[in-house]
Amino acid sequence: MAVTGVLRPGYVQLRVLDLDEAIQHYRDRIGLNLVGVEAGRAFFQAFDEFDRHSIILREADSPGFDRMAFKVAKDSDLDHFAERLLGLGVHVDNIPAGEDPGVGRKIRFNTPTNHVFDLYAEMELSETGPAVRNPDIWLAEPRGMRATRFDHCALNGKDVSATAKIFVEALDFSVTEELIDEASDTRIGIFLSCSNKAHDVAFLDYAEDGRVHHISFNLESWHDVGHAADIISRYDISLDIGPTRHGITRGQTIYFFDPSGNRNETFSGGYTYYPDNPRRIWQAENAGKAIFYYEKALTDRFMTVNT
Amino acid sequence: MAVTGVLRPGYVQLRVLDLDEAIQHYRDRIGLNLVGVEAGRAFFQAFDEFDRHSIILREADSPGFDRMAFKVAKDSDLDHFAERLLGLGVHVDNIPAGEDPGVGRKIRFNTPTNHVFDLYAEMELSETGPAVRNPDIWLAEPRGMRATRFDHCALNGKDVSATAKIFVEALDFSVTEELIDEASDTRIGIFLSCSNKAHDVAFLDYAEDGRVHHISFNLESWHDVGHAADIISRYDISLDIGPTRHGITRGQTIYFFDPSGNRNETFSGGYTYYPDNPRRIWQAENAGKAIFYYEKALTDRFMTVNT
Amino acid sequence: MAVTGVLRPGYVQLRVLDLDEAIQHYRDRIGLNLVGVEAGRAFFQAFDEFDRHSIILREADSPGFDRMAFKVAKDSDLDHFAERLLGLGVHVDNIPAGEDPGVGRKIRFNTPTNHVFDLYAEMELSETGPAVRNPDIWLAEPRGMRATRFDHCALNGKDVSATAKIFVEALDFSVTEELIDEASDTRIGIFLSCSNKAHDVAFLDYAEDGRVHHISFNLESWHDVGHAADIISRYDISLDIGPTRHGITRGQTIYFFDPSGNRNETFSGGYTYYPDNPRRIWQAENAGKAIFYYEKALTDRFMTVNT
Amino acid sequence: MAVTGVLRPGYVQLRVLDLDEAIQHYRDRIGLNLVGVEAGRAFFQAFDEFDRHSIILREADSPGFDRMAFKVAKDSDLDHFAERLLGLGVHVDNIPAGEDPGVGRKIRFNTPTNHVFDLYAEMELSETGPAVRNPDIWLAEPRGMRATRFDHCALNGKDVSATAKIFVEALDFSVTEELIDEASDTRIGIFLSCSNKAHDVAFLDYAEDGRVHHISFNLESWHDVGHAADIISRYDISLDIGPTRHGITRGQTIYFFDPSGNRNETFSGGYTYYPDNPRRIWQAENAGKAIFYYEKALTDRFMTVNT
Repeated sequence: MAVTGVLRPGYVQLRVLDLDEAIQHYRDRIGLNLVGVEAGRAFFQAFDEFDRHSIILREADSPGFDRMAFKVAKDSDLDHFAERLLGLGVHVDNIPAGEDPGVGRKIRFNTPTNHVFDLYAEMELSETGPAVRNPDIWLAEPRGMRATRFDHCALNGKDVSATAKIFVEALDFSVTEELIDEASDTRIGIFLSCSNKAHDVAFLDYAEDGRVHHISFNLESWHDVGHAADIISRYDISLDIGPTRHGITRGQTIYFFDPSGNRNETFSGGYTYYPDNPRRIWQAENAGKAIFYYEKALTDRFMTVNT
Repeated sequence: MAVTGVLRPGYVQLRVLDLDEAIQHYRDRIGLNLVGVEAGRAFFQAFDEFDRHSIILREADSPGFDRMAFKVAKDSDLDHFAERLLGLGVHVDNIPAGEDPGVGRKIRFNTPTNHVFDLYAEMELSETGPAVRNPDIWLAEPRGMRATRFDHCALNGKDVSATAKIFVEALDFSVTEELIDEASDTRIGIFLSCSNKAHDVAFLDYAEDGRVHHISFNLESWHDVGHAADIISRYDISLDIGPTRHGITRGQTIYFFDPSGNRNETFSGGYTYYPDNPRRIWQAENAGKAIFYYEKALTDRFMTVNT
Repeated sequence: MAVTGVLRPGYVQLRVLDLDEAIQHYRDRIGLNLVGVEAGRAFFQAFDEFDRHSIILREADSPGFDRMAFKVAKDSDLDHFAERLLGLGVHVDNIPAGEDPGVGRKIRFNTPTNHVFDLYAEMELSETGPAVRNPDIWLAEPRGMRATRFDHCALNGKDVSATAKIFVEALDFSVTEELIDEASDTRIGIFLSCSNKAHDVAFLDYAEDGRVHHISFNLESWHDVGHAADIISRYDISLDIGPTRHGITRGQTIYFFDPSGNRNETFSGGYTYYPDNPRRIWQAENAGKAIFYYEKALTDRFMTVNT
Repeated sequence: MAVTGVLRPGYVQLRVLDLDEAIQHYRDRIGLNLVGVEAGRAFFQAFDEFDRHSIILREADSPGFDRMAFKVAKDSDLDHFAERLLGLGVHVDNIPAGEDPGVGRKIRFNTPTNHVFDLYAEMELSETGPAVRNPDIWLAEPRGMRATRFDHCALNGKDVSATAKIFVEALDFSVTEELIDEASDTRIGIFLSCSNKAHDVAFLDYAEDGRVHHISFNLESWHDVGHAADIISRYDISLDIGPTRHGITRGQTIYFFDPSGNRNETFSGGYTYYPDNPRRIWQAENAGKAIFYYEKALTDRFMTVNT
């Protein structure tokens, strides 16, 4: 196959303060299917995903990021990537099947920005995923914000360049765009793709490690971004900013917070990326336009609030 | 990189009866940029493509398909794929740089359905492609149908299974969907992807080889599909069918003919494909729904007219 | 007020063969609110309508049109219009409050095309209509096809000119567009507005009187027309034609049939009409483009099937 | 006709600092047709308007509002409304044909908020307006922001209630929505309609009279609001706020400034108004949500910058 190695963001596990409240938000507002609840964790799948789950919420005393898992194309890729990670001096743990329901064996590593990542090759198929025999475009009418899939995470930490280097050199990601302070040659933001998407994960410079800026869900259109905004106002969900567009990725977007304070994004569009595309470079003095293409200015909340 | 080997449909060369008339159609109606005209051929680029050209029109006595070229990730891929093609018994020609302006060396092969394909690794960048330094979302306002890129070809011939086998076994394409006459175990249509797109090339069963059913351009949204329909009526372009949706790929689409009778498609949407996705299977008795999800019936013109 | 006299299509009563089946169609697929069922009639309201109901379905042995009711601005308008109808030789019946739940007194007349119309000034407010104090854009998320309102009827009969004359001369409607066979000076279609809408009722030439061609519901956008098409295919609703656009009114539209065979339309857009606008005239030889702006051709089913 | 008396906002005359710069903005960015320039004034028409012009720009030393003109249904309406204005104690001037090219006689009055209004019954038809014989949906592809028409003005001044009273009592406008400080029983904003539109003119409480908050243009869809935002960023037009939605009118909107500092709005949607609709009331404590439904907060610039 021509899409090889790391295929996509498979799932993310977030911490939430109140699981019932969180279930209402992710199921009824974002529109995910609740797969099940077990041992203090709730599992969700979006209507256009084949695999069992893409979001795990764990009830805890503080919100935030537990770990993000990428799916690879085949089991032997796990050994291949483990070797390359070790070659870069990155410690790798082998996690046998069973830690997460329906998921096969995993390898786990931590980044200089202190984010835990898993790679896995096997997950059970969802019972509510797309049909494959004379399939309708969906089984049940999408509801709430009509999220089609979990799309990516943006993670905060100190040495984003060191973390990005692992994704590029050990895992074959491409850097699609960078936001650079040219005076100090510092990367403020690095956007990485393992696919034709404009980003599959992003790292954002921040004074504290291990933080999550947002988790993001794909929508079908700008029309649905507007509908998401309507849902946000109607149900008094805490809006961050939007509807707007990013300069970086060109995605049309809206940001808001789940009841525990974790930032969510729902977005549509963005260019189709190929690894022969020139890298797009944003200078720090254009950071406003890079992040919020219409407003051309950053907000304190966007730059300082994360979990 | 995780998108490896064959990256994407790079360009297609079609025959047209009158080059001036064709230029008006592809430039002013579909909205491509005219790169240049030389020696009876016109070259076009879509506003969101980095490379020099994606469409070549050659003036000739009959319309139809000359050849389609795929871009590969690196020069050594050309040798690698040549070897694998030869391993399948497929004859390979080496075409030195210079046959097409701005394009490096190519390898060329023919399929059982008598379609010529080129692979190449190098093309000059376009002067009208996307900016890469603090880029705006486009340099000039998209015009006409606002085609973002050349997207794929659908080609007609007799032994589509044999042709698809080459793309899968030598070039690492995935079969995303098939339309099957289960009684005779015959493939009526095979849809192949080398990327996250639902298809990059398709082969459709037909009694004559070497034919092109349509070449397709991507649009940003269903809104733009409707706008394309408006353009088609306003300028008396020959409509085939649409706006409608495909069951296969789920793309929202409209078909029409260029002044020489070559069928064009402009479409948006369609699912994001990953190589671990189950293959979607359509039974021949659902061919109507597979092709035209709303009408649930095929038309004679769609099944019998090609060039 | 500057919108005076006849305000809008208030409601229509149709006959259906099976009330339960019809309720599922109009409530779950078109997305209306079921107000209640009494004495063999079901009453529906669309989410953006203030008044109690806009659709009445009556179970009967054959599908079709019972009557259409227009709301007028004030009670005295009923007497005023009764007088003007009588002045044109049109018989008028006075229907006391109570025939339809929640509706005040009505006046009733019949047309040369044998369609019964009611005028009324009073209807109870809906409990599920828009809020009026710090209102959200909707109370509950629109569902199904997300119809915002009952919009208009198109009715078939022989002498459409004589019927239109009543609406113009007695009720102050404007003719916005006409489809004319200029050779015979015959009106094939007459489109009438009492508002800023491109039409509030239309009369279409047909060999039999008292028929209904379609009843129509407004949608917010072309995006929702596409979504309606998805719903139609997913639930195997009988599609007539669309998504497409009308030349007449410029509305973006899709036609389908309720389970009893009554034709429904859901549409969006269309121009804003003012009574000083020049009348738009379509010649019979352009009837295809007038009705289906993209296809530029009529279909037998559209021209001959009605109830 | 059922739309009677005052039909619609016909045109507005604004002052601009530099006519050439303003022409580029209104013609190339908003997408109006330039009708002509004479004696320091430029005249514009939107592609979907039948009449000669809807915007007049006059070069002057300061930006701002000269006057707004409403079209009435017939010449005798001018006398009728003059009489009713005089009946309310409002001074009326008769302006003979010729002041504005292509426009018939006018009557003129001033409001307590010191805004000059004209009423007129006759204007020449545009040469670039919609076709009326087998009309295409547009003659030339809409360009720039694709404004379909001049839609309304929002005007600032001290005694907005006294001004609104004139529109209601002398000109038959309806108050569709009010933003009220209930503690002091003060109207902060009054929205008035003479049609099925949610507003044709609005008055906003402000400490200085004779100011214009914004002039507004209609777009076809939320998609086009997004496109307007893209245009604004691409050409470095000064953005005020948006894309967002209003609670009042429910319009989907974006605000920006012309090169002279006059605020423009382009918007789509909003409900269809009928004079029997209950009046929507917003309390001052919900002013944020009333004005910016998503942000639920006002901005200083929006409240204090006008011309």
